[in-house]
Amino acid sequence: MPDRAIGSTRYQQLAQEIEQQIVAGVLHAGDRLPSVRQACANRGVSPSTVFQAYYLLEARGLVRAAPRSGYFVTARANGVQLAEPPTSAPHSGPQAVDVNDLVYAILGSARARDIIPLGSAFPSPVLFPLDRLRRALVSGTRRLAPWNMVEDLPPGNLRLKREIAKRYVRQGMAVGPDGIVLTHGAMEALNLCLTAVTRPGDSVVVESPTFYVALQALQRLGLHAIEVPTHCREGIDLGRLAQVIDLYRPKACWLMTSFQNPLGSLMPDAKKKDLVQLLARNEIPLIEDDVYAELYEGNSAPLPAKAYDHRGLVLHCSSFSKCLAPGYRVGWAAPGRWASEVERLKLMTSLSGSIPVQAALAEYLQEGGYDRHLRSLRKSLQAQRNSLFDAVTRNFPEGTRVARPAGGYFVWVELPAGVDALALHRAALAQRISLAPGPMFSARAEFQHHIRLTCGQQWDATLERATRTLARLIGDASPTPRPVQSSI
Amino acid sequence: MPDRAIGSTRYQQLAQEIEQQIVAGVLHAGDRLPSVRQACANRGVSPSTVFQAYYLLEARGLVRAAPRSGYFVTARANGVQLAEPPTSAPHSGPQAVDVNDLVYAILGSARARDIIPLGSAFPSPVLFPLDRLRRALVSGTRRLAPWNMVEDLPPGNLRLKREIAKRYVRQGMAVGPDGIVLTHGAMEALNLCLTAVTRPGDSVVVESPTFYVALQALQRLGLHAIEVPTHCREGIDLGRLAQVIDLYRPKACWLMTSFQNPLGSLMPDAKKKDLVQLLARNEIPLIEDDVYAELYEGNSAPLPAKAYDHRGLVLHCSSFSKCLAPGYRVGWAAPGRWASEVERLKLMTSLSGSIPVQAALAEYLQEGGYDRHLRSLRKSLQAQRNSLFDAVTRNFPEGTRVARPAGGYFVWVELPAGVDALALHRAALAQRISLAPGPMFSARAEFQHHIRLTCGQQWDATLERATRTLARLIGDASPTPRPVQSSI
Repeated sequence: MPDRAIGSTRYQQLAQEIEQQIVAGVLHAGDRLPSVRQACANRGVSPSTVFQAYYLLEARGLVRAAPRSGYFVTARANGVQLAEPPTSAPHSGPQAVDVNDLVYAILGSARARDIIPLGSAFPSPVLFPLDRLRRALVSGTRRLAPWNMVEDLPPGNLRLKREIAKRYVRQGMAVGPDGIVLTHGAMEALNLCLTAVTRPGDSVVVESPTFYVALQALQRLGLHAIEVPTHCREGIDLGRLAQVIDLYRPKACWLMTSFQNPLGSLMPDAKKKDLVQLLARNEIPLIEDDVYAELYEGNSAPLPAKAYDHRGLVLHCSSFSKCLAPGYRVGWAAPGRWASEVERLKLMTSLSGSIPVQAALAEYLQEGGYDRHLRSLRKSLQAQRNSLFDAVTRNFPEGTRVARPAGGYFVWVELPAGVDALALHRAALAQRISLAPGPMFSARAEFQHHIRLTCGQQWDATLERATRTLARLIGDASPTPRPVQSSI
Repeated sequence: MPDRAIGSTRYQQLAQEIEQQIVAGVLHAGDRLPSVRQACANRGVSPSTVFQAYYLLEARGLVRAAPRSGYFVTARANGVQLAEPPTSAPHSGPQAVDVNDLVYAILGSARARDIIPLGSAFPSPVLFPLDRLRRALVSGTRRLAPWNMVEDLPPGNLRLKREIAKRYVRQGMAVGPDGIVLTHGAMEALNLCLTAVTRPGDSVVVESPTFYVALQALQRLGLHAIEVPTHCREGIDLGRLAQVIDLYRPKACWLMTSFQNPLGSLMPDAKKKDLVQLLARNEIPLIEDDVYAELYEGNSAPLPAKAYDHRGLVLHCSSFSKCLAPGYRVGWAAPGRWASEVERLKLMTSLSGSIPVQAALAEYLQEGGYDRHLRSLRKSLQAQRNSLFDAVTRNFPEGTRVARPAGGYFVWVELPAGVDALALHRAALAQRISLAPGPMFSARAEFQHHIRLTCGQQWDATLERATRTLARLIGDASPTPRPVQSSI
């Protein structure tokens, strides 16, 4: 196609040729591009020309690099990318919460082991160093004196608190062991923090959509949810948050500032800083659910909002469940000025964490190797995110919108208007595929044509088939019927 | 003393002689009686005569059998036993609860390792098979497939539930694995059950005195306590309970029917049955805190009230923390008709228990040896209870009343009227001795001259000295001053 190449450099020319092949359907979504070596040989160009061409295609979103595997076509057959969902537009104002029946029905329906877990909240456990953790369980408990089994109870394992504190310090935060309350996973930490800063009847700001666990906590404590518009890349809308604060005087915010569940959004650093300042001006505590922070792309972890908090107003909650030791149930809160209140609540509700598993994690962290594990985990999850995103892009019908997550392991999908996510959930389950329908993520059961998909497993033909099945079910459910097929 | 022996059989005669020696101060509190063999040889009587004499002295509370060690004098030097405390007489009517500051101040003050832990809530960890548990941690986790680490999360380890269910079945209770919710220790189980059956502002019946954890749970949930008179041997007064039910319509009872903390009381079987029937007639749920059930004397475990419940109204809570694995934090609830509600609350507040420690306990229980461990633990605790009870009997001043516990590891002591238990707590701490002052066990800070002592450790000279020191401090604090000693 020399006519299209006029005025182009060699790499632009190469990129255009490949783009043309994609649009023409010569190269299909999911196809691998020739390796750099092959392309050099076939085209008689230098490796740097091939690289530049591939970078250009990647920048245009037409191909994607998969670590150690090469470049793959991501584009839809017609070359048009799916749009991302717009900022959410929830109904405003405080809302009593009643999500439990829905959440339990959905979680309960998808528990069989033969179900393809696109709706799961957990990444695959094979991503974690379970053998090394078991060895740490042995060596860590061997170090314990018998009296540790009762005397460590209220404060928790000090070695583990020190290891956690070190990681705060590495990010420039002044959180010491005394400022950390060990909990049964982040969920207990979040619940205790919410209990510490609210009284029944209060209103609490959450993102829209928000993780259903936040809604369940609000329901349990008799709190009202104020859902604030949130964007799938940049997180909560601070302008609307400021208005909501003026209008309703919420008693707290519960936000996921990095890799929000379900959106995958990552608030930029400057925005996190603005958030903390806005809340500080209004003396509103921020409960920061930061369990996905380690699952970032690139070279450095995003800072939490906590890093910009100089007044103890951020109650930072995290755990090892998503990045190291699922099932161990070890989390923590760094509750700022509420540290002693949260410690008391912890003492009152479940006394203390499990001493052996705390000792195991302390041992593991002290031995080193955690950062190496995290690098490998991040690489796996990035590939899995790309694969799921690409599969949605390739297979889902026109009118689908999909958010490209910046980290974590969820992909948020807005289906064509009129597709009922709950009906889709039922139809998918009949095909042994789970998904998380949008209404789980809203106090008003909004997001009725949205779903959250999970990329917690290595991508394979089964998952590829599952997304195609979903695509077909979505097509079947779309209000505009497809042309009737002749049947016998 | 032939005049006293007229009309007596030989064994009565022997018993009277020994009693005389005790009263005369020839035999001192703590002295060992001659062995049966020695007594036969010395007196020219048969072994059965000696045994009968010793049994008679034991029945009179003058001597006590220590396993494998023989018989010891328990009586005070003047031969007068200390009376037991009368049934408590709390102020009646619902009472808002505000115990946290007191409880935390006292628990926090006694945490240093050099303090003699007469106020501790825990038995000594050396009583438990920590090495075998650690091996079970290794073998139990080795059995887990990776997917157990996430898929076991909501329901908990099924093997462990089955082992727990087996123990219910052994006692004739129809509790299956599905009726059990695994929790972070009994404390979480109790808290979840209380949450399931009450709403803020409700009233809940507790014993008087009651374990401060019950009061803290009531405070946290905004509930009112109705404290009902309770006897140190037979537990709560059912007549008063019936009146309280008619007057105040409480929404629940939270009771420890076996080896109550702090009293050590054990409700007789028939009384437990009456309790269940009384509550059933009024449709009132019973939250039964049964963590000490395995720490009985004699040959068979007391049945819980749950055993008499045919309507699912008893929410039975227990754990392995007091009888097998302190620090592991594995407990459970068998919540009867509230099972699914409690399971939901569990899911909502802390998701699930720690998978590795659940697997370890399942492994330990399946391997066998638990009952052997329990027999040895019971023997140790019985000896320790006797030693502490005897030491109090020997050393504490006139006017002291002490409850002989039927199991567990607490001894409840009523000090001479006018001794301030909180002041005593402070004076004892200055001597590096902890104790649990009575006001911790009451919503109205009653029991101001009562203390709970712990016999969780093997008795030794340090503990003997500590009780003497306490006795001296009590004497110093008694309102009737002792004769002034000449100084210099």
